Amino acid sequence: MTLPMAFVGTLQIATPSRWFECAAQQWQDLLVDHANCEKKAASTALSLIFTYSQDMDLTERISRLAREELRHFEQVQRLMHKLNIPFKRMTPSRYGEGLRRAVHRNEPKRLLDLLCCGALIEARSCERFMGLASLLDDPLRSFYQGLSASEARHHELYLQLAAARFAETWRDNLNRLASVEAELITASDEQLRFHSGMPIL
Amino acid sequence: MTLPMAFVGTLQIATPSRWFECAAQQWQDLLVDHANCEKKAASTALSLIFTYSQDMDLTERISRLAREELRHFEQVQRLMHKLNIPFKRMTPSRYGEGLRRAVHRNEPKRLLDLLCCGALIEARSCERFMGLASLLDDPLRSFYQGLSASEARHHELYLQLAAARFAETWRDNLNRLASVEAELITASDEQLRFHSGMPIL
Repeated sequence: MTLPMAFVGTLQIATPSRWFECAAQQWQDLLVDHANCEKKAASTALSLIFTYSQDMDLTERISRLAREELRHFEQVQRLMHKLNIPFKRMTPSRYGEGLRRAVHRNEPKRLLDLLCCGALIEARSCERFMGLASLLDDPLRSFYQGLSASEARHHELYLQLAAARFAETWRDNLNRLASVEAELITASDEQLRFHSGMPIL
Repeated sequence: MTLPMAFVGTLQIATPSRWFECAAQQWQDLLVDHANCEKKAASTALSLIFTYSQDMDLTERISRLAREELRHFEQVQRLMHKLNIPFKRMTPSRYGEGLRRAVHRNEPKRLLDLLCCGALIEARSCERFMGLASLLDDPLRSFYQGLSASEARHHELYLQLAAARFAETWRDNLNRLASVEAELITASDEQLRFHSGMPIL
């Protein structure tokens, strides 16, 4: 698949087709992992709200994003219920931890990194939802189509927050983190997850 | 003030009038602390969702509650903006930490305790919003009136979750924690906060 135009400035590579083929086959596991991803997205957003509480423009917009992530979490759970997919504990993919390792510890670089990571994760999620929607049937097809639009908005929000606060440096920094992201997506992964790399088969 | 009937089985004492008098005078500081309380309520809810992720009924209902807490957080921030109240960092009151110390570390008692604490905090918040609404003018009066209705629903939700999972023990346990809560509310506090005890003047 080719990279959607909206993410050409953000993501450096498209997800390999093989990930989509495996993911479409293992859609049940992917849905359970997806519920975890929505929870984690809400949790990351809340953590930004606590850490940068003096930036009331950021906290307002990120709070709305967190609410949307939680609504998606509820929607995934309802879909699991409808499709008879039981809950199970799943280990997270290397992706989140891999990105976190590339985040600076000191401010203000840390905030910029966190916003860039947010943009990258949302862009990747959007790309994968779009690709999955084209391979799956309803109700997953329309669910993922709807979600891809939200993720595109979230990607845009993170970029806007970064650009407004780090006009000079955000672009270079995004590129630095995007190459870490591209490595995580192309490296081999034993377990298939929503943000995993190349499946080992 | 007398305890609202809805909380007679939950809270053991009414907030002393002097707290309301001081709080109405220091409404600006209270609003800043209130924003923190809404954030913390959302964070506590999210933590329940992560810890008890296998209980999909609980996570669904608590996720909706978390979204509501975040919406309230946004509303408080907008009110701060409208009333020209700048952000400032504030130390939390002893209340949250005091309740947390009374929570069991081992399951399943821990879950029951957390749900009972949730019910107590929401009931106390509702009682205080009702009292404050009667002492303040608009826009705070109608804002607090509206919030008191939400807190009453949240109190009810936490009790329902506890009663459905711990039919035999929830009542006694609620009473145990309610007496801890009553102590925290009646002990003297140097700093006025939304959940502080008796103001020292």
